[in-house]
Amino acid sequence: MEGTKNQPKVGIIMGSDSDLPIMKLAADVLTEFDIPFELTVVSAHRTPLRMVDYAQNAAKRGIKTIIAGAGGAAHLPGMVAAITTLPVIGVPIKSSNSIDGWDSVLSILQMPSGVPVATVALNGAKNAGLLAVQILGAFDMVISQKFHKYKVDLESSVNEKITKLKNDWPNGFDGR
Amino acid sequence: MEGTKNQPKVGIIMGSDSDLPIMKLAADVLTEFDIPFELTVVSAHRTPLRMVDYAQNAAKRGIKTIIAGAGGAAHLPGMVAAITTLPVIGVPIKSSNSIDGWDSVLSILQMPSGVPVATVALNGAKNAGLLAVQILGAFDMVISQKFHKYKVDLESSVNEKITKLKNDWPNGFDGR
Amino acid sequence: MEGTKNQPKVGIIMGSDSDLPIMKLAADVLTEFDIPFELTVVSAHRTPLRMVDYAQNAAKRGIKTIIAGAGGAAHLPGMVAAITTLPVIGVPIKSSNSIDGWDSVLSILQMPSGVPVATVALNGAKNAGLLAVQILGAFDMVISQKFHKYKVDLESSVNEKITKLKNDWPNGFDGR
Amino acid sequence: MEGTKNQPKVGIIMGSDSDLPIMKLAADVLTEFDIPFELTVVSAHRTPLRMVDYAQNAAKRGIKTIIAGAGGAAHLPGMVAAITTLPVIGVPIKSSNSIDGWDSVLSILQMPSGVPVATVALNGAKNAGLLAVQILGAFDMVISQKFHKYKVDLESSVNEKITKLKNDWPNGFDGR
Amino acid sequence: MEGTKNQPKVGIIMGSDSDLPIMKLAADVLTEFDIPFELTVVSAHRTPLRMVDYAQNAAKRGIKTIIAGAGGAAHLPGMVAAITTLPVIGVPIKSSNSIDGWDSVLSILQMPSGVPVATVALNGAKNAGLLAVQILGAFDMVISQKFHKYKVDLESSVNEKITKLKNDWPNGFDGR
Amino acid sequence: MEGTKNQPKVGIIMGSDSDLPIMKLAADVLTEFDIPFELTVVSAHRTPLRMVDYAQNAAKRGIKTIIAGAGGAAHLPGMVAAITTLPVIGVPIKSSNSIDGWDSVLSILQMPSGVPVATVALNGAKNAGLLAVQILGAFDMVISQKFHKYKVDLESSVNEKITKLKNDWPNGFDGR
Amino acid sequence: MEGTKNQPKVGIIMGSDSDLPIMKLAADVLTEFDIPFELTVVSAHRTPLRMVDYAQNAAKRGIKTIIAGAGGAAHLPGMVAAITTLPVIGVPIKSSNSIDGWDSVLSILQMPSGVPVATVALNGAKNAGLLAVQILGAFDMVISQKFHKYKVDLESSVNEKITKLKNDWPNGFDGR
Amino acid sequence: MEGTKNQPKVGIIMGSDSDLPIMKLAADVLTEFDIPFELTVVSAHRTPLRMVDYAQNAAKRGIKTIIAGAGGAAHLPGMVAAITTLPVIGVPIKSSNSIDGWDSVLSILQMPSGVPVATVALNGAKNAGLLAVQILGAFDMVISQKFHKYKVDLESSVNEKITKLKNDWPNGFDGR
Repeated sequence: MEGTKNQPKVGIIMGSDSDLPIMKLAADVLTEFDIPFELTVVSAHRTPLRMVDYAQNAAKRGIKTIIAGAGGAAHLPGMVAAITTLPVIGVPIKSSNSIDGWDSVLSILQMPSGVPVATVALNGAKNAGLLAVQILGAFDMVISQKFHKYKVDLESSVNEKITKLKNDWPNGFDGR
Repeated sequence: MEGTKNQPKVGIIMGSDSDLPIMKLAADVLTEFDIPFELTVVSAHRTPLRMVDYAQNAAKRGIKTIIAGAGGAAHLPGMVAAITTLPVIGVPIKSSNSIDGWDSVLSILQMPSGVPVATVALNGAKNAGLLAVQILGAFDMVISQKFHKYKVDLESSVNEKITKLKNDWPNGFDGR
Repeated sequence: MEGTKNQPKVGIIMGSDSDLPIMKLAADVLTEFDIPFELTVVSAHRTPLRMVDYAQNAAKRGIKTIIAGAGGAAHLPGMVAAITTLPVIGVPIKSSNSIDGWDSVLSILQMPSGVPVATVALNGAKNAGLLAVQILGAFDMVISQKFHKYKVDLESSVNEKITKLKNDWPNGFDGR
Repeated sequence: MEGTKNQPKVGIIMGSDSDLPIMKLAADVLTEFDIPFELTVVSAHRTPLRMVDYAQNAAKRGIKTIIAGAGGAAHLPGMVAAITTLPVIGVPIKSSNSIDGWDSVLSILQMPSGVPVATVALNGAKNAGLLAVQILGAFDMVISQKFHKYKVDLESSVNEKITKLKNDWPNGFDGR
Repeated sequence: MEGTKNQPKVGIIMGSDSDLPIMKLAADVLTEFDIPFELTVVSAHRTPLRMVDYAQNAAKRGIKTIIAGAGGAAHLPGMVAAITTLPVIGVPIKSSNSIDGWDSVLSILQMPSGVPVATVALNGAKNAGLLAVQILGAFDMVISQKFHKYKVDLESSVNEKITKLKNDWPNGFDGR
Repeated sequence: MEGTKNQPKVGIIMGSDSDLPIMKLAADVLTEFDIPFELTVVSAHRTPLRMVDYAQNAAKRGIKTIIAGAGGAAHLPGMVAAITTLPVIGVPIKSSNSIDGWDSVLSILQMPSGVPVATVALNGAKNAGLLAVQILGAFDMVISQKFHKYKVDLESSVNEKITKLKNDWPNGFDGR
Repeated sequence: MEGTKNQPKVGIIMGSDSDLPIMKLAADVLTEFDIPFELTVVSAHRTPLRMVDYAQNAAKRGIKTIIAGAGGAAHLPGMVAAITTLPVIGVPIKSSNSIDGWDSVLSILQMPSGVPVATVALNGAKNAGLLAVQILGAFDMVISQKFHKYKVDLESSVNEKITKLKNDWPNGFDGR
Repeated sequence: MEGTKNQPKVGIIMGSDSDLPIMKLAADVLTEFDIPFELTVVSAHRTPLRMVDYAQNAAKRGIKTIIAGAGGAAHLPGMVAAITTLPVIGVPIKSSNSIDGWDSVLSILQMPSGVPVATVALNGAKNAGLLAVQILGAFDMVISQKFHKYKVDLESSVNEKITKLKNDWPNGFDGR
């Protein structure tokens, strides 16, 4: 990966600081994978010009992918995608007056032809971070290997639970 | 109403020219009420800077209210409302790959606190035009009286149908 | 704006006093903008004749726009809009036995051609107040300038949060 | 049943004459059961005062139950129920710009405490007619016996189809 | 109304005793109107033959209308309606593992042609009781007058709240 | 499998003969697997006693599993399951006035504890037939082997399409 | 039933140990019916090869039916069904970030032609256990009789509640 | 981009050849951007082992991102993502017996933590192709510049329509 270690490769933005408890999960993943990132609030509706500015300049500053989270009528991911050429990962957030999350899911997912947003599950900021890791990893062997190890560890943690379960359930499956 | 007769008072914008068959209904209403308007395509996702420009300057050009229609992940009404100080009327449009219209309804309706969009029914461009008439009419006696007459005519057209129905259904209600 | 300062310009009505905690947010906005308003309960289903009376006389008393909130099968906004010539802003309220708010959203939003209701988000009474401010502001420079300042303040409050966030997240975006 | 034979016992009303092809099914049922009825258009949104008048006087004219059909934000059944003391049967109609019928279903069904509407299935005008028959039949032995015969005939028509099916499907069930 | 005072005129049945806190509201209404009723558990799925028996004999015992409440895949109201000739009022109940109540609403409301169920709102047992009162009242002047008084009282209780509200909101509407 | 070859092992029932074009797909599967079945109409709502009779006697007649299809408020599968001890497979059918199929899906799937229905996809009668084959096959080696061959054939038919696709798309994947 | 008593006849698997509180209900049923089972975690997404292995070998080890529970985008039941020839019972689980359970319901229920999953209600693990009992019981008289007794007991427990209810509600139905 | 020009960089897979008319749109985009790709059918449910094989080997063969489309209970994108370390783009497809597309949307979008799928709109295969272009473009200046030009062209095509619209609507907006 070109550039200095500390130059952010991923931009994490969110529509409101109330989204931080969810969006922090994306930051945690990037920290775990030692990938430099920036994190800030960019509101499509309350700071629209800041949003335009952010989207116009992210690529120039060396950002490779943008993770954008928002709730309700969530326009941030789609509007940033409209302006930047970078891949944008959208995180629908179930905010307080949301109609069960459907509003943010549909207003991020259902983008028109020409302007994709890579949408993850409702409140799925952790997966957004992992998707950014995978995108970077497709062109960086070190990251790719770390991600492979992450998946192996995921499997191992499941296997540990399986072993533990077997003690409680003597009839438990003995296979592989 | 201040200004010259021909200066547009209402701006009708839509995300795509494929929305024109629906959005034309708003234009028809304004024509019927002799209210000058402008109509054009402004795409939040394909011409985002034009959208910013439009929203920043509409009020200065004498526009009093903006009618914005869009389908799918419909960001145009909300983004224009984020930038202008004018009231924005949003028309959710059931476009071809829409999920039954829910996407456009929710991404226009569920705006966050601070940035309202006056949302009308799915494909309800005619009502958007009438709402613009009502907004102008609240401060213009001539328009208000025309709108009153519109409602009386609406009632009359129903009454004509009722009379016609009575011929076919001899048991039909004879009341008022 | 014509009339005396104290003459209400906006009517806030709601189907039940249990809607007051939500609808009060509209009143707070109007108080903040120094716009005289009236607030009361008008129930479409329990006081239907009072509703007819209210809708028939609001314009005569100098009201310029009506904000109507209701939950469940919410008929108040649409029925008032059927009778008055004023623009009606509808606030769907998620009441206790609502089916996730869908009932009030759809019974306010999906009005037939001829009778628009300017619908805001579920429980979006604050935005209903702001929309009334925008409607009045389209014809009143003082209100319009106050609303412009409101939007600037909204942006400033976001910017303060951004600055605060930067302390916690040293990698935070340094831009504009 | 008190009163003359020709005095309508059931009022069938609908929000628009475009609802007639559906609502006619209720009239057909009442004709089949020889129950006098009246049928007309009463629009909650376009003829609100006619609606109030209709609801206030139906009982006085000898009507025993009202069948009201409407589409979209369907306020007619609930508003009539708000004014009359008669039982009101509501028929949600899937009109052209309906969101799959959900709007009319929810705005008829989800009435607040104190004002019930007896709601039938989407486009279920035939069942609305039958429900009126059952209500009258609960207090009129002749109607009740006719309705009993109707159910027996319904069963017979199914049994005929079963017999016919058995020819095509030799493995068909031979039981009762 | 024919028969002795104590002979039940309305049957209230429910699929499970866990539905009692909701269904009790129907019983309270009937008690308030001094209408004799019976109340019991009849489970379509756990006591199907008892259900058949109940539905076959209710009319013979003098019952004039049946109120049936159930949650989830709610078959009780529809199955009872399939067997009896009496009008059946269905109450969808939001039980613990319900999918937001949609399951009980749809499995009660969407009955096929020939077998209506008069469906009320989710958890709307109070309205089910009132609907039974209205059905009886259509043929009993005393009940009808009581129901008229109930509506007047409903309106009065709203008016009291309006008066109280006026103290807190000096700008409150002074009208009727 | 015990019993004579011609004794039906699977009962296919449906609420209406209009369901036959869908339910025939289950019969086709059983014919293909040479499993004797019976097929008939049993309507929960129009022939409730026939339904009780069918459910009470199916097991005695040697039926091992029942496939029941119905649309709208679909009570047939659940009611049969309430009475029989046999496994019941439910097929939700999207009938003409269905609300997009949700009604039949939810009224078959959401059965209360104690009375399961094995629900398949909307209009999924073919899969209902295959599920019956699998249930029989779990205890019959011949059927199980036929089903294994069915799956191999399914895979082969996909592989043929893959080969064909490769001609049109020279860049097509060459792997396994 | 062939095989030794202790050899598992039913395999209970789940996507995560967080599903155990729900899936344990299936195990409780099988314990109550004295049917040997195995229980373990098999994650489609975190241990995909273990899943393939499990599905390929379950039948060989004497398993007759598999109960698979999962939440969110729930692929476990369908993927296991794709590989095994055994009947697979799917349990949709309402996990923490689920969109009201719709995601797991639809991703288990809506399987394509050729690969059925016998889906039960949301969180319906108890019914999944009972369905497995019914499948085994269709070919095992002892189990079938136990299941018959289970249904009789279910009915008895309702009858006890009915008797108890009668004390509290003197007007309660005296019938059967 | 490393490797020879003809070595596929993107894998396009779909659950059935009936998905080809939609998925071809992704191939068209890649052809337009001169990015080598492979396209084939890989069915999660009918060729599960081929799917495992494909997912295990795609990265080794030089694929950088996988586009997977499927309808109904759509498990292909999520299962491939479970096995590969590459970013997977999921395309929900509205197939014939889909419940309005909700099934495929939710079974692709709502992946559990640890296994992201970059989901695009219903039938959004064109956007899936563009997202792959953006992912490759983040690390390839030539592709990135082509994508920038694509966006400029998109904007131009809208501007042409705007000019054309101005002829038909003389009142049309004259701005930028």
